[in-house]
This record gives sequence, structure tokens and C-alpha cells, in this order.
Amino acid sequence: MKAEIVSIGTEILLGEILDTNAQYIAARLPALGIDLYFMHQVGDNRARLAGVLRQAWDRADLIICTGGLGPTEDDVTREAICDVIGEEPAVDPEQERILRAFFAGRGYAMPERNLKQAWLTPSTRAIPNPRGTAPGWWVEKEGRIIIAMPGPPTEMQRMWDKEVEPQLRGRSSNAVIVSRTVKTAGIGEGTVDEMISPLLHSENPTIGVYSRADGIHVRVTAKARTEAEAQALIAPVEERLREILGNAIWGYDADEMHDAVGALLAERGLTIATMESCTGGLLASTLTDTPGASRYVRGGIVSYATEVKIRFGVSAETIARFGVISGETALEMAEAARRALSADIGVGITGVAGPDSQEGKPVGTVHIAVAGPGDAPPTTTSYTLGQGREAIKRRAVTTALLLVRRAVLAADARATGRAG
Amino acid sequence: MKAEIVSIGTEILLGEILDTNAQYIAARLPALGIDLYFMHQVGDNRARLAGVLRQAWDRADLIICTGGLGPTEDDVTREAICDVIGEEPAVDPEQERILRAFFAGRGYAMPERNLKQAWLTPSTRAIPNPRGTAPGWWVEKEGRIIIAMPGPPTEMQRMWDKEVEPQLRGRSSNAVIVSRTVKTAGIGEGTVDEMISPLLHSENPTIGVYSRADGIHVRVTAKARTEAEAQALIAPVEERLREILGNAIWGYDADEMHDAVGALLAERGLTIATMESCTGGLLASTLTDTPGASRYVRGGIVSYATEVKIRFGVSAETIARFGVISGETALEMAEAARRALSADIGVGITGVAGPDSQEGKPVGTVHIAVAGPGDAPPTTTSYTLGQGREAIKRRAVTTALLLVRRAVLAADARATGRAG
Repeated sequence: MKAEIVSIGTEILLGEILDTNAQYIAARLPALGIDLYFMHQVGDNRARLAGVLRQAWDRADLIICTGGLGPTEDDVTREAICDVIGEEPAVDPEQERILRAFFAGRGYAMPERNLKQAWLTPSTRAIPNPRGTAPGWWVEKEGRIIIAMPGPPTEMQRMWDKEVEPQLRGRSSNAVIVSRTVKTAGIGEGTVDEMISPLLHSENPTIGVYSRADGIHVRVTAKARTEAEAQALIAPVEERLREILGNAIWGYDADEMHDAVGALLAERGLTIATMESCTGGLLASTLTDTPGASRYVRGGIVSYATEVKIRFGVSAETIARFGVISGETALEMAEAARRALSADIGVGITGVAGPDSQEGKPVGTVHIAVAGPGDAPPTTTSYTLGQGREAIKRRAVTTALLLVRRAVLAADARATGRAG
Repeated sequence: MKAEIVSIGTEILLGEILDTNAQYIAARLPALGIDLYFMHQVGDNRARLAGVLRQAWDRADLIICTGGLGPTEDDVTREAICDVIGEEPAVDPEQERILRAFFAGRGYAMPERNLKQAWLTPSTRAIPNPRGTAPGWWVEKEGRIIIAMPGPPTEMQRMWDKEVEPQLRGRSSNAVIVSRTVKTAGIGEGTVDEMISPLLHSENPTIGVYSRADGIHVRVTAKARTEAEAQALIAPVEERLREILGNAIWGYDADEMHDAVGALLAERGLTIATMESCTGGLLASTLTDTPGASRYVRGGIVSYATEVKIRFGVSAETIARFGVISGETALEMAEAARRALSADIGVGITGVAGPDSQEGKPVGTVHIAVAGPGDAPPTTTSYTLGQGREAIKRRAVTTALLLVRRAVLAADARATGRAG
């Protein structure tokens, strides 16, 4: 099955809106066995939109549209589809009832111009949209499908996930493509490549190794007649990767490092506290992005001013001797955070986010230290890298999370050693 | 001048990459008087890409491509352009010299397959790319222009800003469209509408009022023969807006609230400290996103655990009496932050980021308090709003910044009153 995506809205062509809908849909098509050859963005112009749709109608089996389903004259997606399929729209009584109920539920009378949102055509059925007034359109005619969804991402995503994707599943006779990403940390790209080299020649699934900010990712991609068959091709390879890479693996697919570290802490009943300078609280904020973070996050200190570091337990002498931007200060910050907030693990981050260098140390210099858990020796790192304040902060946070993970696993290993 | 944008890369069609290049370019065309009618994304496929380019060639004056300029066989942008313009590419000695020097400068020998990056055709000139190995292509033939730029955004953006946009300026005989956005806070959309109603009927420039997370934006859009003429149409309207809206205006165009608040603090020599619960440090981190934030950010405390709040100065009795999620606790947090970090202004944020309610208070409940500057009465707010942990956090940070701004301006007004 061949598809094209058409995103509709003059605000996209003016660069006021980033078209994230197209990517959202595109990312979900391979697992459905649907080949995407073109994506287009077009303005709120009936003739130009109909032109794009007509061309897609001639070369694709499936056209997926987003946007242009609002109630105003500018919203011309329904009209343009009618131009292409040669049908007249008419108000559908059931859709009118749903629409009026939507407004009544919010205590408003329905403006009459909204009535066009209740239109259907003979080849069209409505796709429910509980998050907004515009139902989608599912057009099926002459062996082709046109799907039109509303533009607001929260409405579109729900409609895709709940109403569209389940209906498309199994409609394509193409091979489906399924990927599984195994995320590792603590070993370099070359080493991962070497460790898994016996698997790299596999043709189905194929295996790729990618270097990312949060470590090395191994991606296993299988092609098969059905999703289940593709999964069955991936499973034994994933199992082998788990044997080879062991606890270098911290997550899969969309897992994020802070969630993985949070799970690690929660499982062990460990708590964490931070003292941050150049990251300004971003590490604490990122840790608390995980639901349930209150089980293990005690809190943190943003010690932006040097006196604040000293007030919360960093030795003035260490700062005087090694500088604020130093591994020694980072370590004292980690210990101070742990002490002041009574946590099992303390993390200290100090560095130069720029734009100016500091203490003669270049922009991008970052020192990170982890104190604990227990009587473990500290885990530290430092590097100079990065362009731009926000990028430097983000990288420092990811590196700190990796370091916390390493400290926890090292403590596990010591405990096992002692027990053994 | 009519334009189309073509973004090239199979990874875009697989949803692995979000096409931000197209938006970057689209946003810059109106001020050049260039009308954009279509944007397309197409994979690394020579025939399909040539098809898209040929169609654009037939209906547009300007085709702007990004991607597909790498050295591999998959990179087919040059080949597809040659298919459309009917020319043969050949290695250009000067481009070859630049390319070999680029590799030599990094201590590598140039792989021979990179040589295609030195290709040109009779109608093509190279666009310099100091950030990468692929120069751009500027093709000019039969009254049309094709511009091809590399896909990596840092390379593309530099090339657009320094090499392409200056060359395109003045090439279009269309009217140029220039916008100016005036950002306000502290007054509602209806009130702004009323205040500026005498201006709303203006036809050139037009004026629009938009509600955004960081306040009400007023957008002035002028159409004229040149950018200078458009600016001249905007200037008197902007002046009137300044007279009417006064210090409700906190910024213009791309200005961000945290930068504006930072400037306000720096101008007055005021310092700020935070105590954050549900936002987990995001306010402190956002404040420190502004270069030079160390002039006014003392630091902050992330008091995620209740004991941490008490340890750093919040009264246990207040918490017991009103709950952690209360205006009273927020205010004590603000005062504690100010005290513990010796700052002029303290900000306290406590709330329920979810997914579960807390103390019987619903997800999205947030209390924010600002203590100071000086002996000012506290500034506080609370609301229940938002879906999703990260959205709740972001909204709380924006609201806190607005509140700090209000507290500083109120102190200014009191000082003026006293002086007067």
C-alpha cells in the first residue's frame, strides 16, 4: 500500500507552525506495511489543495490529510476532497446531533457556521473526535482511501491512535517493517560494534549501531508479512543482544534515561539529591519529569552563586584552591547535596555554560561527581564539549544521569562481591 | 516570485527526523516578498525527486531544496537537478581544492567518493559551506532559480543566513510582508482588544490579537514594496501601542519571558532565589538559560520532599495546617528561599504535577508566591489547569516569571509614589 501525507494550513507555509503531524503519522506507517513516498504541505486554498490531492489520488492507495477541518470559510479540506471524488457534501443528522451536544455540554449554542463540520458524502464516514468539534473523514472509493484528520496535534494523535491506525492494520499486503532499539551506555560505539559483530551480517532483521547523546543505540529492524512475524524475527536477536551487552543496556525504544535511572533508584529504595551550578536545576527538573519521582528524589540545591555553594556545605578552601570549575568542587557539591538533603546519592555539577569562559576554563567545560550510594568511592567525569548554553546544559544532565546509573550498578556489583 | 520548498531524505519519510529546515526557510520568505505555495518531503530516490522538481520547475520561479548533498550513492539531489535542467555535472577544480583542504585541515585524506561534492554544471555556482563538506548549489536557468542546501540544520541555517537570503533580497517584485509582535502580560485578551480598538480597523498594517502562554501578543503586519517601507508603516502603530499598553509590554518578536525578567532584575540590581516543589528546578533552570544570569540568580532549592521544605525554612505548622499544596506554603517557600539564599526576591512554587492528585487537590493545582523585593507585600496566584506533567511544569514556570515581573513593577510604582 502506497501513501502520501498532506498537511493543510497557510500558517505552515508562513513558517508559523512546525508540521509535527506529518512526522507523527510517518513514524507509524512502516509497522503497518504502508510505504510513504511523498509528504506535502499546502495552504488553505481549495484549488491548490485539490491539485495535490488529485495527483496523490492518481499514484497512491492512501492519502492522509491533517488540518483544514475547522468551521470557517478558510477550512477547505472537505470541499477539496469533494472536488477530487466528485461528490456533494450534505449535513448528516447524526453528526449534527453529536456536534450540537458537544456545544451544549460546554454551555454554548452552536454557531450555525459550524454545521459544515457535520457534512458527509456518500463515500464518507465520520471518524469520532471527542477532543474537538471536527470529526475526521474516512473516504473509501475506487479502491482508494482518503483520511482527513483535524490539525491540532492532541486531536489528531488521539484520532490516529484510537480510530485510524487500528482500522488500517492488516489493510496493506506489503511487508511490514518493525524496529526495536536497544539503548546502552558506558561502552563506546567501536566496542559495541565489536561485541555484536557476529550479529551484524544478519539480513533480516538488519542491525545498525548509532551513537546518540544518551549512549550507543542498537537498532534491530525486521521485515515480514505481519507485525507478529516481524516481532518473531526480532526476539531471538534481542535476546542475544541482552546476553552480550548485559547491564550496559539501560532501556528500549522510547525509554528515556531519566526514567531508567528513576526505575533503578526506586527498585533499590535509594534516594537522590543534587547540587547544580551551570545546569541551574535542569538535572533536578529532568529527574522529576518521571511520574512517581517523589519516591526517590529528595530535592536539590541550585548553587548558582559561589557563596550559595559554601553556605550549603562546599568548602571555601577547596574552591579557593581548585576553583569553582573543578572536579574537586563538583565532588564536594555532590557530598554536600547528599548531606544537606539526607539522600543516599548526591550529584554535583559545575561547569561553564558560556557565553564567556570562567576561571580561564573554556566554555563547555563540565565537571560532574556522584557521591554514594553507601560508602562507595565517588564516580566522577569531566569533559569540554558543546556549543550553546542550552545544549551544554542538556548534555551535562544526560552525562550526570549516566554517571548515577554507573554508581548504582557499581554498588550492586560490590554488594554481590561481598555477598559472594 | 513563487517558491516551493523540497526537503530530501528517506529518514524524513520514515518519521525519524522532523523536517525543521522547511519551517526555517518558510518563516523567512514573506519578508523577501516570496510567496510559498507548496512544501514537499521526498526520499532519497532520484526519479521521484526529479518528478517533484520538474513539477515545481513548471509552476514556480524558485525551488529551495535541503538534503541529499552528501557523498554517498543515496545522495541524489545533484543528479535529480541535472535531470530537470538537462545538464551534465563535472568536477570543478576550485571546489575540489576547497574540499581537499577541508579534509586536510582535519588531518584526513579525502575519500574519493566525496569528489561528487565538487561537482558543478554550466548553470550552477557553488554556495560556500564552511561548516561541512557539501557546498550548496545555486542554479539559474530559463528565468528560474534552484537552490540546494545541505540537510544538517547548522549547515543549512548558516548557508541560508549568510549566502542565500542576502542574494534573494530584492529579487522578487512582489510586495514584502513584515510582522512585528508586541508581547504583553497582566491584561486579558478582551481588555487588550478594547484598549487598542481604534487601531484594529487599520488595513495596512493589519493588527491581530492572540492569546499565548506568556500573555497577550499583538501582531502588526505590513505589506509594502520594500522591507523599509513596511517597517515605516509599522513604526507609528508600534509607537501607539507603546503609548496605550505601557509597561504591560514585556518584549517583542522572539523575546522570551525569562530574558525579559532577567533584564528587569539586572537593570535594578535585584537578585532572585527560588524554592520549587512540583516544577523540580525548572524555574531556576529557565532563569539561568539567559546568558549573564549569574548577575541576578543567587540559586534555588528544589524541595521535592516535604522534610526538605521544612529543613530550609518552611514552617512545619503551616504545612500541617494548610497542606503542602497551599498558597500559605508557597508563600513560606518564597520567603525561605529569599532568606536562605540572601536574595532580594524569593519565589515559591508548590503544586500537583500528577499523574495522581495530592492532599485531595486535583492534578494541575499550582500555588505560586513571590516575596520581595524590599518590604513589598507578597504577590501570589493559584490556579488549576493543564494536562500532562511537563505542560503543567512549563505553565507554572511561565506564570511564576509573570508574577516576578509584576512584583518588580509594583515595587517600581511604590518607589515612584513615595518619591512623588
